[in-house]
Amino acid sequence: MSTHLHPDRLFPADAAGLAIARRLFAEVKDLPIISPHGHTDPAWFASNENFTDAADLFVVPDHYLLRMFRSQGLSYDDFGIAKLAGAEPDNASPPEVQPADRREIWRRFCANYHLFAATPSKIWIDHSLSMFFGINQPLSVEIADETYDEINQKLSAPDMRPMAILDASNVEIIATTEYALDPLDHHQALAKKGLLSRIRTTYRPDDVSDPDNPAFTQNLETFGGLTGENTSIWAGMIKAHAARRAFFRQYGATATDHGVPSAVTCDLSSAEKQKLLDGALQGKLAPAEAEQFRGQMLTEMAALSAEDGMTMQIHAGSSRNHDKTLLATYGRDKGADIPQKGEFTNALKPLLNLYGTSTNFNLILFTLDETTYARELAPLAGYWPTVKIGPPWWFHDSSAGIRRYFDQTIETAGVYNLAGFNDDTRALLSIPARHDVWRRETCRFLAEKVAERVLDEDQALKIGHHLCYAAAKEAYSL
Amino acid sequence: MSTHLHPDRLFPADAAGLAIARRLFAEVKDLPIISPHGHTDPAWFASNENFTDAADLFVVPDHYLLRMFRSQGLSYDDFGIAKLAGAEPDNASPPEVQPADRREIWRRFCANYHLFAATPSKIWIDHSLSMFFGINQPLSVEIADETYDEINQKLSAPDMRPMAILDASNVEIIATTEYALDPLDHHQALAKKGLLSRIRTTYRPDDVSDPDNPAFTQNLETFGGLTGENTSIWAGMIKAHAARRAFFRQYGATATDHGVPSAVTCDLSSAEKQKLLDGALQGKLAPAEAEQFRGQMLTEMAALSAEDGMTMQIHAGSSRNHDKTLLATYGRDKGADIPQKGEFTNALKPLLNLYGTSTNFNLILFTLDETTYARELAPLAGYWPTVKIGPPWWFHDSSAGIRRYFDQTIETAGVYNLAGFNDDTRALLSIPARHDVWRRETCRFLAEKVAERVLDEDQALKIGHHLCYAAAKEAYSL
Amino acid sequence: MSTHLHPDRLFPADAAGLAIARRLFAEVKDLPIISPHGHTDPAWFASNENFTDAADLFVVPDHYLLRMFRSQGLSYDDFGIAKLAGAEPDNASPPEVQPADRREIWRRFCANYHLFAATPSKIWIDHSLSMFFGINQPLSVEIADETYDEINQKLSAPDMRPMAILDASNVEIIATTEYALDPLDHHQALAKKGLLSRIRTTYRPDDVSDPDNPAFTQNLETFGGLTGENTSIWAGMIKAHAARRAFFRQYGATATDHGVPSAVTCDLSSAEKQKLLDGALQGKLAPAEAEQFRGQMLTEMAALSAEDGMTMQIHAGSSRNHDKTLLATYGRDKGADIPQKGEFTNALKPLLNLYGTSTNFNLILFTLDETTYARELAPLAGYWPTVKIGPPWWFHDSSAGIRRYFDQTIETAGVYNLAGFNDDTRALLSIPARHDVWRRETCRFLAEKVAERVLDEDQALKIGHHLCYAAAKEAYSL
Repeated sequence: MSTHLHPDRLFPADAAGLAIARRLFAEVKDLPIISPHGHTDPAWFASNENFTDAADLFVVPDHYLLRMFRSQGLSYDDFGIAKLAGAEPDNASPPEVQPADRREIWRRFCANYHLFAATPSKIWIDHSLSMFFGINQPLSVEIADETYDEINQKLSAPDMRPMAILDASNVEIIATTEYALDPLDHHQALAKKGLLSRIRTTYRPDDVSDPDNPAFTQNLETFGGLTGENTSIWAGMIKAHAARRAFFRQYGATATDHGVPSAVTCDLSSAEKQKLLDGALQGKLAPAEAEQFRGQMLTEMAALSAEDGMTMQIHAGSSRNHDKTLLATYGRDKGADIPQKGEFTNALKPLLNLYGTSTNFNLILFTLDETTYARELAPLAGYWPTVKIGPPWWFHDSSAGIRRYFDQTIETAGVYNLAGFNDDTRALLSIPARHDVWRRETCRFLAEKVAERVLDEDQALKIGHHLCYAAAKEAYSL
Repeated sequence: MSTHLHPDRLFPADAAGLAIARRLFAEVKDLPIISPHGHTDPAWFASNENFTDAADLFVVPDHYLLRMFRSQGLSYDDFGIAKLAGAEPDNASPPEVQPADRREIWRRFCANYHLFAATPSKIWIDHSLSMFFGINQPLSVEIADETYDEINQKLSAPDMRPMAILDASNVEIIATTEYALDPLDHHQALAKKGLLSRIRTTYRPDDVSDPDNPAFTQNLETFGGLTGENTSIWAGMIKAHAARRAFFRQYGATATDHGVPSAVTCDLSSAEKQKLLDGALQGKLAPAEAEQFRGQMLTEMAALSAEDGMTMQIHAGSSRNHDKTLLATYGRDKGADIPQKGEFTNALKPLLNLYGTSTNFNLILFTLDETTYARELAPLAGYWPTVKIGPPWWFHDSSAGIRRYFDQTIETAGVYNLAGFNDDTRALLSIPARHDVWRRETCRFLAEKVAERVLDEDQALKIGHHLCYAAAKEAYSL
Repeated sequence: MSTHLHPDRLFPADAAGLAIARRLFAEVKDLPIISPHGHTDPAWFASNENFTDAADLFVVPDHYLLRMFRSQGLSYDDFGIAKLAGAEPDNASPPEVQPADRREIWRRFCANYHLFAATPSKIWIDHSLSMFFGINQPLSVEIADETYDEINQKLSAPDMRPMAILDASNVEIIATTEYALDPLDHHQALAKKGLLSRIRTTYRPDDVSDPDNPAFTQNLETFGGLTGENTSIWAGMIKAHAARRAFFRQYGATATDHGVPSAVTCDLSSAEKQKLLDGALQGKLAPAEAEQFRGQMLTEMAALSAEDGMTMQIHAGSSRNHDKTLLATYGRDKGADIPQKGEFTNALKPLLNLYGTSTNFNLILFTLDETTYARELAPLAGYWPTVKIGPPWWFHDSSAGIRRYFDQTIETAGVYNLAGFNDDTRALLSIPARHDVWRRETCRFLAEKVAERVLDEDQALKIGHHLCYAAAKEAYSL
C-alpha cells in the first residue's frame, strides 16, 4: 500500500499512540495559520497576479532543492539560475550547456526527485502538489511533462492568485521580511487595500547593522537620508533605527529580525561605540571588531524593542556563502550557507542583563546548533521572562528536527516558553505543508506523552492548540 | 482515563516493552534508596522537628519552580523570596506588591501549575503529594486552599518528622553537602544519635578553592585558623585540606564535591602554584589565572583522594548568577544559573595522567553539556579505571534526559562505569519521586534492549539492580 | 526465551515495524560485503596461514576490549599485551604477575564478558563465535576452557584460512591501510596471486605528513629516497606523494586516508609552506604551526586527488594517547585514544573553495563528534558535490550510534550523500558481524520510515540496497 500522503503520516506506528495522535490532530489540523516570520514576496499579494510556471514556482527559487542537486554534481545552469553579470559558467557543468527552458528544468527536477527521499523537501512538495494541483503521486520522469502542463494550466485560474492561495491555505496572518532601506512599496499598496493586518512586514536591519556588508557605508548614508538623522554619529544612527522601526510598524510590523553569524551581544561605552562606527564607515574593522559592532547593534535593538514593544528575533549561526565561487557566479542565498557552532549563554549575557526582564520585550532565539537546545536555550527561556525559543530553523525544520527540538527543550523550558511555529519560507505553496508537518509532529510528541501517561489527553489538546496557533500570536503580539 | 500517577507511567507504550518494563520495575522499585549526593539540610535530621508550611516546603526553596514562574513574568516577591538587605523590589513585579502570605504563595503556585506540564517538576511534585499527603489529583487553583490545609495539617504529625520521612522513603543512606569551613554542628549532633552511617556529610571546599569567591582571602584565613596550618603557603593550604577532609570523614564523609565552571585541571610547578596563591590572596588574578587556580586545586584534591580514598565528584559547566540584578536582590541559587559548553578530554588530561590509574581513587564526572556524553565522558570512563560517569545532572535529570544519557553512554562506557543515581536535591519530599523516575527510566531502557533482543531479561534485571542500588554504593564506597 | 543472536535482534519491537524490517533485511543480508576502509593485516591474505589461538585472535589485539578491562581495574599485563623494551610493569597491576598464558587470557576474558552487556563488542563477538565456531551461547567463565579448546581446534582447519574466511564472509572487496613508507610487500605478493582487485591497499601518509610524529624528519628522508624526490623542498615533497600514490594505485589503492586531530585545512603561499617544512624538519614547529602543516597537507592531498581521482578520507577528532604512561609502557593504539570536539564548517573552507567542485574528487568525512552530523556534515554534504559523510566511526559504530547518525544526517544530506558502511576493523572475524549490525540498523531506520508512511517499501528497499552495498562502491570508485 502506498504511503504517499497517507493521512497518518509521521504519527506513531503503535496502535495506542496512533489513535491518540489522530484525535489530537483532528482538533488542530484546521486551525488558521499564523505565519509570523517568513520570506514570501509582498509584491505577490500587492499585485495579486497569477504565477505562470511550475519550474519558476517550485524549483528555481528553492535553495533546498538547488543545493541537493549541486551535491549530486548537477549544475545550477541546468536549473535556470541566472548568473551575475560577467560570471563564468558553473564549473560543475560542461560549458556548452545552454540556459535550460522551463519545461526542461521541470523534467530534470522530476528525474532527480528520488534524491529527496526521506527529506522534508519531498514532504512539502508532495503536499503542495496534492493540495493545489491534485497531483497525488510522487514526481518522476514519467509524469514530468504531464504534471508540468497540469500545473501551468491550473496556475492561471483565479483561485490560484496569491490572495486566493492565502485563503485556501487558511492563513490568518503572514509576515514578510524587509530590510531597513526597503521603501515598503508593496506594503503601502497592501495598506490601501486594507490588507495590513493580514500581511505584515518585519524590520530586518541587517543592511545597516553589519559592517561586513560591502555596501555598509553607502547604506548608512541612505539610511540617514531616509530618516533625516546623522547616521555617522552613533546616537543619530540609533535614532534613525527608531524612526524606521516606527515606519515599519505603520505597515504592520510587530517584529524585528536579525541575521547574525553569532549571538554575541555587547554593552559598550559611548566612546567605544563611536569608535566602532567610525571604523565601520571607513571599512577597516577587524573581524573581532565587526562582531562587536553587530553585538552592540543587537543590544541597541533590544533597547528599542523594550521601548516600542517590537518582538526581537535573532537568527544566529549561519556561515553564509561558504562557496566563494558560487557567490561570485550566482549571488547570495543559493544554498551554500552552512551552520556553525553556536553559543548563547555567554553571548547574550550583556543584552539580557540590560533588557532581559523588561516587561515590554519579547526576544525569540533561533539556532542552527541543536546542541544549544537543552544546554542553553531551554535554560535561558526557562528563566528570563523575555526569552522564548523559536521553532527549529532551516536545516532543523524537519520531522526528526522537530522531534529533537521537543525532546530537548520542553522539560526545561516548559511549553509556554516556546514561540510556536514559523515556516520561514519564500515558497508560498509550501506554507500549509510546513505547518502540517509541525502540527503532525506536535501531535505525535503529545500522543507519546499521553501514551507514556505523562500528560492527560485533555491537557495535551490544550497544549497542541497553543503550540499550533496561540503561541505564535502571543510571541509576536499579533 | 487519567494518566495522573498511572502505575505504568514512563514505560514503553507497546505491549511487549511494557510487560518487560513492569516485570523489571517490580524487582527494583522497593530497593532501599542510596542518596550519595544532595543538598538536604542536616539540621532537619539533627533536630528532627516537623516542617510547618506547604509553601515553605514545596515552593519557596525550589529553584526549578521559581525560575519557571519568573520566565512567565511572575515576580519572586510574590513567592516569598526574601530580599537581601537593601535590595530594590524585583523589577519584574509592580512595586506595590507586598510580601505574600504563605497561603497566597500556595494559591499562586496552584494557579500556575499548568506551566510544569511535561516537566520533571510536575512528576516529582505529583508523586510527593500523593505519597506523603494522599493528594491524588493534579494541583489547580480549585483545590489550592483545600490542599494547603491538608498538607499543613498532616505536616504536624509524628510520621512527618524528617527521620520518619527518611524511613517512609526507604532511604538507607543520604549524604548532605557542606563547605570546608562548615563546623558540621548538625553532623556532630547526628553522631551523638548514632546516625552517622545513615546521614553523612560531603566535603565541598569551593569556599576555599575558588579565588573568584569574594570572601576567598578571609575564608583562607579562617581555614588556617581551623586547621592550624599556614594557608598563605601552598603546601600549608593543602595540609589544611588534608586535615579538614579527615575531620569530614569523622562525620561520615566518603566523598568530596567540586563545583566549577569548567573541568580544567593543571599540573603546575611549586613556584607557579605559590604565585597563583599569592595573587589570589591579593585578589588580583586574571580570569585565566583564576581558572588555573581552580584547575590546580582539582588536581590537588585528586592527589589527596588517591591518599585518603575519598571519592571525588566534579560538577562542571554552570555559568552561575547569569542575572546580576537577581543576584544583587535575592542572592545565589535562585534559578538563574545557565549551563555552558563543556570539555573534559583535554581539561582532565593533567589530572588523569597523574592519578587516573591510582587504585584508591574514584572520580565521578557530572556535566551540563550532554554533547560530552558520547564524545568524551563515555570514552574516558571506558578507559580510565578511576573515572565513572555521574547520572544526568540538574536540567538533565529528567525523563528524556535520562534516556539521552543511557543512549549516549552505555555502548561505550558499559554499565559498570556509571555511578548509579544521585538525586542532588534540597527537596526532601522529592527524593523518592526522583529515584522513582530514575528506576522507571532504567527499566524502560532495559526493557527496550530486551525487546530488541540485545539483552536477556535475567541479565537486564541484574543490571537494573546494579544501576538502582549497588552502583551508587560502590562508586561512593558506602 | 533467550535473546542470544535472535534473528530479529535490533529490529523494531512493534509488530508492524518488525514485519517491514524483516522483509527489508531479507533482501540485503546476503549482499556481498564491500569493506573499503579497515585495518586488517595484508600478511594474512598474502600468506594465507591459519590463525592459531583464540586469545591472540579475539582478545590481545582488540583495543575495544582492552580499554574496558582497564576501566574496571584489570591489568594489560594480564591480557598478554607486550611491554615496550625497558618499560615498567603496568601500575594497575601487582608487579609479581607474570605474562599470562593464552588459555589464562581467554579465561579472564570469559570471566569478564558481562562488562560488555549492551555494548557493540558483545554483539560482534557473539556473532563471530556463532558464525565461525558454532558457539551459540554467551561466553562465561563456565565455558571458558571448552570454548578455548573448540576455537583453537577449528582454527587449524583449511576452511579457517584467511582467504577462506573472506569467502565465508562473502567479502567482495576489502581494503587494508598502509603508511606511505610501507613497501607493500604483502600486496605485491597478492598481486602475483591475482588478488589485487579483491584485497587493496589504501594510501595513509600520516607517517610523512604529521610533524608531531617523532620520526618525521627521518621519515621524510626515507620518503625522498623511495621516490627520488627532494623532500626538503615543498614541491619535491608533493611530487614524492604523487609518485607514492601512483605506486599504491598499482596495488589496488583507490583511496587515501588521513588521521588528524582536527579537520583544519589551509591555503598558504609557497613561501609559507616552505617555512613550515623547514621548521618541521628542524623539529621546531609550535603546536599551531604543526596544525597548519597538517592543514596544508590535507589541501595538497585534495589537489592530488583532484588529479589522480583517489577518494580522500579524513578521520578527524581523536586525541591520541591520552594516557602517557600507557603509551610509554605498551605503545600506541591500545585503547587510550579519546575523542574531542570537532569542527568542519570553517576548517574545510580553504580546501573546499579550491577543490570542492572538482569533478574527479570524492571527499569522505568521518567524525568523532556527533554534534557535527546535523550541524555541519549533513549541510556540507548536501551542498558540495565532492563531499560525502562517512559512516559512524569508532565509538559511534554501534547500534545507537547508527540510529543517531541516520536521524541526524539523512533529512539534510539525503541518502545519496552518505558513503555507505566501513567496518574500519583489524578484527577479521568481526567483519560480517559489523556489516550485519549496519544492515540491521539500516533496515530498522527504513522500516520506521515506512511505518510512519514517509517512504514506500519499494523505495525503502532500493535505499537499503544502496546503503548496504552500492554506496560504498561508488564512494570509493570500486
